Amino acid sequence: MPEQDAKIRLFVDAPLGPDAAVPLGRDAAHYLASVMRLGVGARIKLFNGRDGEWLAELAEAGKRNAIAVCRDALRPQAPCPDVWLLFAPVKRTRTDFIIEKAVEMGVSRLQPVFTRRTASERIRTDRMQTNAREAAEQCERLDLPEAMDGAPLVSVLAGLGDRRIMFCDERGGARPAADALRDAGPGPWAVLIGPEGGFAPEEAEMLRARPGAVPVSLGPRILRADTAAVAALTVWQSTLGDWA
Amino acid sequence: MPEQDAKIRLFVDAPLGPDAAVPLGRDAAHYLASVMRLGVGARIKLFNGRDGEWLAELAEAGKRNAIAVCRDALRPQAPCPDVWLLFAPVKRTRTDFIIEKAVEMGVSRLQPVFTRRTASERIRTDRMQTNAREAAEQCERLDLPEAMDGAPLVSVLAGLGDRRIMFCDERGGARPAADALRDAGPGPWAVLIGPEGGFAPEEAEMLRARPGAVPVSLGPRILRADTAAVAALTVWQSTLGDWA
Repeated sequence: MPEQDAKIRLFVDAPLGPDAAVPLGRDAAHYLASVMRLGVGARIKLFNGRDGEWLAELAEAGKRNAIAVCRDALRPQAPCPDVWLLFAPVKRTRTDFIIEKAVEMGVSRLQPVFTRRTASERIRTDRMQTNAREAAEQCERLDLPEAMDGAPLVSVLAGLGDRRIMFCDERGGARPAADALRDAGPGPWAVLIGPEGGFAPEEAEMLRARPGAVPVSLGPRILRADTAAVAALTVWQSTLGDWA
Repeated sequence: MPEQDAKIRLFVDAPLGPDAAVPLGRDAAHYLASVMRLGVGARIKLFNGRDGEWLAELAEAGKRNAIAVCRDALRPQAPCPDVWLLFAPVKRTRTDFIIEKAVEMGVSRLQPVFTRRTASERIRTDRMQTNAREAAEQCERLDLPEAMDGAPLVSVLAGLGDRRIMFCDERGGARPAADALRDAGPGPWAVLIGPEGGFAPEEAEMLRARPGAVPVSLGPRILRADTAAVAALTVWQSTLGDWA
């Protein structure tokens, strides 16, 4: 049963293990049977965030109900690094992109934050969860990030404990991100991406005064929020995360 | 005439210099007068890729014709680092994103390449130029990248001379991008982003065999082409470019 046959990869809630029968739910059944035209015996990959990745075989492949039976363990469970993305929601398409990219970049938590200049306070947690699951299925992650409800920046900061936080300081003069992170060292981190209009002066002041907050520069050009999210997480993963 | 008054930033072809009168063209006139409702005396920023950035004042602000007169030099001309992005076009929205992000990330040339598995061979150079100009206006760049017509990968590689090329090697085992780039050192570079389906085996072989080609890893997760473009350029700018 060669692994490369299985191109489809699904996140499920059920336990995975030798010969475990996994009900796939109506949406997945429709996708497998009606969209992808898979039948009984077809192979897919499953993960649930706890039991690693499994090669499974369809034992039922109806349009409303499907069951997959686990055959071979492909990869043991491994955590993503402990880095959260705190981001101010922007326009819907770009927010969707931020979520997709953050999942590919391996964040462990997605936390929308409302700042003084946040353009949109409407962010649907269920939409964020769906997007995050689809991105995780595509990018070969073994887990999903936690998708949190949006909350004001001050409340989120109050709940961070001693988790360090990297943020782009637009005043200029901040150190290059890679240097600043290398000096600050590993541990639990959050990456904060502000709104398109930047932080309000009192927010920037609060961030600079916070112990464990690390102001960084992401180069001489102005990056949009979605670009900045990928760039900041790239530097973090390259310097302190699992890219090294 | 405080600089912060001028929120709009436009690329023009005309020379810029003390008291230079700059005709802005019909699209820009419409945007300034009808969309942004600016009148005579309003301030904008101008750049042309040669003469730095200038604060200018509208001397005419008609809906079809506008003229700006340069007042103060804001920044001297400075080049972006010599890094090209070679990318296989993907779906239109994602190709638009790749172009926007590449401009923000400071590439000096945009070169679409057609590979064995490139899904779309339709890429409009004029659309790419328009997107690149808009991104440059927004991100505070002082120049535009060259937007090249799409060409087959082999022809593009043949024209690279001894320019080094960084590409993601999907076989596994490639070195982390930051380490590989640091060892390879500065100079003219190209970053190559393959199609969603990856390079064909003979293309990957050709790349690995090429002198000056540096295979790199961008971490353990599978990145989409647009994510990979931002991530690869982030590592390049952090390690060898103008983020340091």
